[in-house]
Amino acid sequence: MPTIEQARPWYAGADPVHDFDHILRVYHTAERLGPPAGADMEILRAAVLLHDAEGAAPGGRGRKQHHLASAEFAERVLSAEGWPPERIAAVLHCIRAHRFRGTGEAPQTPEAQVLFDADKLDVLGAVGVARVVAYAALNGQPFFARPSEGFLAGGEKEPGEPHSAYHEFLFKLRRVQERMFTPQGRALAEERTAYLAEYFARLEREINGEI
Amino acid sequence: MPTIEQARPWYAGADPVHDFDHILRVYHTAERLGPPAGADMEILRAAVLLHDAEGAAPGGRGRKQHHLASAEFAERVLSAEGWPPERIAAVLHCIRAHRFRGTGEAPQTPEAQVLFDADKLDVLGAVGVARVVAYAALNGQPFFARPSEGFLAGGEKEPGEPHSAYHEFLFKLRRVQERMFTPQGRALAEERTAYLAEYFARLEREINGEI
Repeated sequence: MPTIEQARPWYAGADPVHDFDHILRVYHTAERLGPPAGADMEILRAAVLLHDAEGAAPGGRGRKQHHLASAEFAERVLSAEGWPPERIAAVLHCIRAHRFRGTGEAPQTPEAQVLFDADKLDVLGAVGVARVVAYAALNGQPFFARPSEGFLAGGEKEPGEPHSAYHEFLFKLRRVQERMFTPQGRALAEERTAYLAEYFARLEREINGEI
Repeated sequence: MPTIEQARPWYAGADPVHDFDHILRVYHTAERLGPPAGADMEILRAAVLLHDAEGAAPGGRGRKQHHLASAEFAERVLSAEGWPPERIAAVLHCIRAHRFRGTGEAPQTPEAQVLFDADKLDVLGAVGVARVVAYAALNGQPFFARPSEGFLAGGEKEPGEPHSAYHEFLFKLRRVQERMFTPQGRALAEERTAYLAEYFARLEREINGEI
């Protein structure tokens, strides 16, 4: 099966938001969530190590298709290692479903649900603060901009309104907790969402000169 | 005197860590710290708006000399506006001294001490979290890496050890509070340093799987 050291070079050149440190954090979270969810840990670990292998690095096929490209890459790796077809299929399902957003392939198995939850937990908490800020910086966006009323009401930005890290929190991150599949993942997500919300509330108060 | 709208284009093209949002935050903090320190607010506001005008943008003379280059730029701007020489000198002292690190020109006047404190407060608290993470991302460094024992003991990194945002906190940011000049600045710095320390403590606990 793929090892951590085998996986590391697959992520060389990835940006600081989707780099191997992300894989390692998801790996450790999956070690916590997998056993209570009844996951087959060999399938889960392989899925974690392979889930962002294609498209995370600049020059890949792009983030939008990275789950499909990574599944194809995983199939080649696991076939070469002689995995039986049904266990390869189980890994590929995890990888394809980790980007589920209400349509497409939903996570059906314990392994796929744990990968999904562990991956999403990495956008929350103090780690989530760092990743959303780093992502904004790398895309030339500020970490804070005052959201317009239209954005607050329905996610519609005014002309010229930046998509700051705070916008990303309001638009997406604060709702990620609602999408978790496992009870343990949901409990961690709720606590980490509360921290993330407190961070941005404090950021706004500092900028307003209230503290 | 220079206005906020006059100053905005001086910072076009600056990176998200030294951009005009930074100037605006320092401006608002200086409005809080200036009156109790007995600062001449016209001198202080001019110094705030001009203090990073040169060298903050990529292609400038570089961060290490940006206080001197910005003082020269300020002299041209204020002379063209017909400021009296002694008031120009007071602004230039603020700008040159805002980068004081134990040697060189120390902040001697209330205006210079307030600019120094307001500028340093912007590396602490929730704003400080965002700026140190953004700076690391823009320089290809991770937001977290485990510091070596040598770095913890004396700031000496091992070969290949990254300079993560956490390293910058340990090496520099946690000690900034000791360098404040005004009582109000010091009180704010202590509270914001405590928040910054809590953030990194939490980040490490999340990464270790302890929470």
